[in-house]
Amino acid sequence: MLDVSLLGTGGMMPLPYRWLTSLYVRYNGKGVLIDCGEGTQIALNSLKLSAKHIDVMCFTHYHADHISGLPGMLLSMANADRTEPVVMVGPKGLKRVVPALRVIAPELPFDIELREITENTYDFNLDELRLKAFKVRHNVICYGYSMTLDRAGRFDVERAEKAGIPQRAWNRLQKGDTVEMDGNIFTPDMVLGPPRKGIKLTYTTDTRPTEGIVNEADGSDLLICEGMYGEEDKIENAKKNKHMTMYEAAKVARAAKVKELWLTHYSPSLTKPERYMKAVRKIFPEAVAAKDGRSVTLGFEKE
Amino acid sequence: MLDVSLLGTGGMMPLPYRWLTSLYVRYNGKGVLIDCGEGTQIALNSLKLSAKHIDVMCFTHYHADHISGLPGMLLSMANADRTEPVVMVGPKGLKRVVPALRVIAPELPFDIELREITENTYDFNLDELRLKAFKVRHNVICYGYSMTLDRAGRFDVERAEKAGIPQRAWNRLQKGDTVEMDGNIFTPDMVLGPPRKGIKLTYTTDTRPTEGIVNEADGSDLLICEGMYGEEDKIENAKKNKHMTMYEAAKVARAAKVKELWLTHYSPSLTKPERYMKAVRKIFPEAVAAKDGRSVTLGFEKE
Repeated sequence: MLDVSLLGTGGMMPLPYRWLTSLYVRYNGKGVLIDCGEGTQIALNSLKLSAKHIDVMCFTHYHADHISGLPGMLLSMANADRTEPVVMVGPKGLKRVVPALRVIAPELPFDIELREITENTYDFNLDELRLKAFKVRHNVICYGYSMTLDRAGRFDVERAEKAGIPQRAWNRLQKGDTVEMDGNIFTPDMVLGPPRKGIKLTYTTDTRPTEGIVNEADGSDLLICEGMYGEEDKIENAKKNKHMTMYEAAKVARAAKVKELWLTHYSPSLTKPERYMKAVRKIFPEAVAAKDGRSVTLGFEKE
Repeated sequence: MLDVSLLGTGGMMPLPYRWLTSLYVRYNGKGVLIDCGEGTQIALNSLKLSAKHIDVMCFTHYHADHISGLPGMLLSMANADRTEPVVMVGPKGLKRVVPALRVIAPELPFDIELREITENTYDFNLDELRLKAFKVRHNVICYGYSMTLDRAGRFDVERAEKAGIPQRAWNRLQKGDTVEMDGNIFTPDMVLGPPRKGIKLTYTTDTRPTEGIVNEADGSDLLICEGMYGEEDKIENAKKNKHMTMYEAAKVARAAKVKELWLTHYSPSLTKPERYMKAVRKIFPEAVAAKDGRSVTLGFEKE
C-alpha cells in the first residue's frame, strides 16, 4: 500500500496559493520525498505529515524550485528527532549541490548517503518497494522516478498440502522466501501462482514528452506528470523551455496506458488549470488537474 | 516616509500559519529587506509587494531561518526583471554563505555587492536613509539594525529674505545643500532652524537583551524585537538559547523609550502570543503581539 501526497503543484516559484511541486510517498512506515523546493516542509506540515519520516529523498534536477527547501527540511527533520540515516538520490551534481546548501544546515543528528546517478537509469530499493530513476529531457540533466510494489502469486493451499509442506513454512513462502525445514528445501514456485498485478506510480516533471517516459510509466496506476502550460499556443514556450503542455502530458498518459494522470508543475501564469481540462480529457479521460495536497492510497486490486 | 511591513513573525521554522521573521521597508521607491528565511518571497508576494524592489538586503546572522529563502528570492528578483545592483550587508561569513547558497541561483541579471561587517557597528546609507548595524548577543555573531530618516530644521522665510537669498536657492538650502549663486555662498544654517525629530525604526532578533540594544533603539518610533517565549518559566530557555522572553523585550522597549514595540520571532510552540500581552503591557503599554504582514507607514510628525 502506498500513501501518496502531492505536496505542491507549482513550477518556477512558490506562490501564496500554490506550493512548489513535490511528492511524498509513505510505504511500510517509511517515506520517500521527490523534490524539495522552497516551502515543501510547510506543505508537508500542513497535511499533518512529519518531517521525521523521510528515508529517501530523490531529486529530479537542481533548479532551485526543486531543491531550495532542502536546508530547512533537513533542520526540521533534525528537530523532529530523526537519527536514522537518509539516502539522497539525484543526477550528477548531488555531491556538489547538497554540501553547498548545507552551509546553513551543517550539524545534523543523522547521516546522509549521497548517490549520484551516472547512467540513464538507476534502480534501488526501500524495503520491498522498487524505485527507478530514468532520464528525461530538460535543459539540464533531469530524471523521472517510478515506484513499484510487486505482488506475489496467489498461495495454492492444495498444492502446499499435496507437497507436504509444513504450515509453519507457508507465510515465508508467500513472502517469496525459500525455506529450509526438517532437511527439506521448499521454494515459492512450489506453492505460488503467477505474479499478480502490483502497484506502480510514476512521477516526472521538467521534461519534454519522450518515448522513454511512455515506456517507464507503462501501466502505472498513477502518473504524476508536469503540465506546465494549458493555453494551446504555449506549445512553443514548452518546446523552448523544455517543458510540456497539458495536452502533451495527456498523450503520454494515453500511450503509457496508465490508470490515472495528475497534472502538476503549473506555470505561475497558469492560475486556473482546471479551465483546460475539458480539452485535456478528450485526449485522456482520466486526467486530473491536481491541486496542492491531493492524496490517494494505492492498494492492491481486489480479486 | 517609511513603509514598514513585517513579513513574518516566526522563529526556527516556517509554519502553515506563520512565515519566518523578516522585515521589508520601502523608502523613496527603494526597498530594504532584513532577513530572508524560507518562504519570505511568498510572504512578500502575498502583500502584493514586488521582489524587484530590494536594493539592500541585511542579515542579522546565518541561521537557516534567517537566510534559507535567499536563493529563491534572488531568482524571483531576476524574474521580476531587476537589473540594478543589490547591496548585501551581514556579519562575517557573508562572503562564504551567499556564494554557497547561490549554487542553485548562479546566473542573475544584477550585480551583488557583499559587505561583511567587521566592527561592532556599521553605518551605511540608502539615499537619505541612514542605516546602522549593531552587534547583539546570540550564540553566533548577530547584528540588529536601525534606520533613521533625519529631518532638517524649519525654513525661516523671514531670515532668508532678510539675508537677501534668491528664492530659487531656497529649495536646495531646505534640503541641506550649500548653494553658490551670483558670486555668493549660502549655507543651510542661514535659513534653517534646529533639526526636527526624524523617523527611527529599530529591528533586532535572536539576541539576549543588552544595554547596547537599549542605546541603539533609543527614541525609536518603532522597535521590532524578538519575543521568542511568552510563558514566564521559559526564561531559562531564553537564557540558554540566547533569546528573549516577551517581558524582556518589553523592558528593552521601556528603557529605550520607544513609541511602539512589535514582538516577533515566536517559538513554534508559542501558538497564541496575544495570550501573554496583558502581562507584557504592564511593563510596556505600547506593546503589540505582531502577526504576519503587520504594516505601518512612519511619517514625520505633524507640527
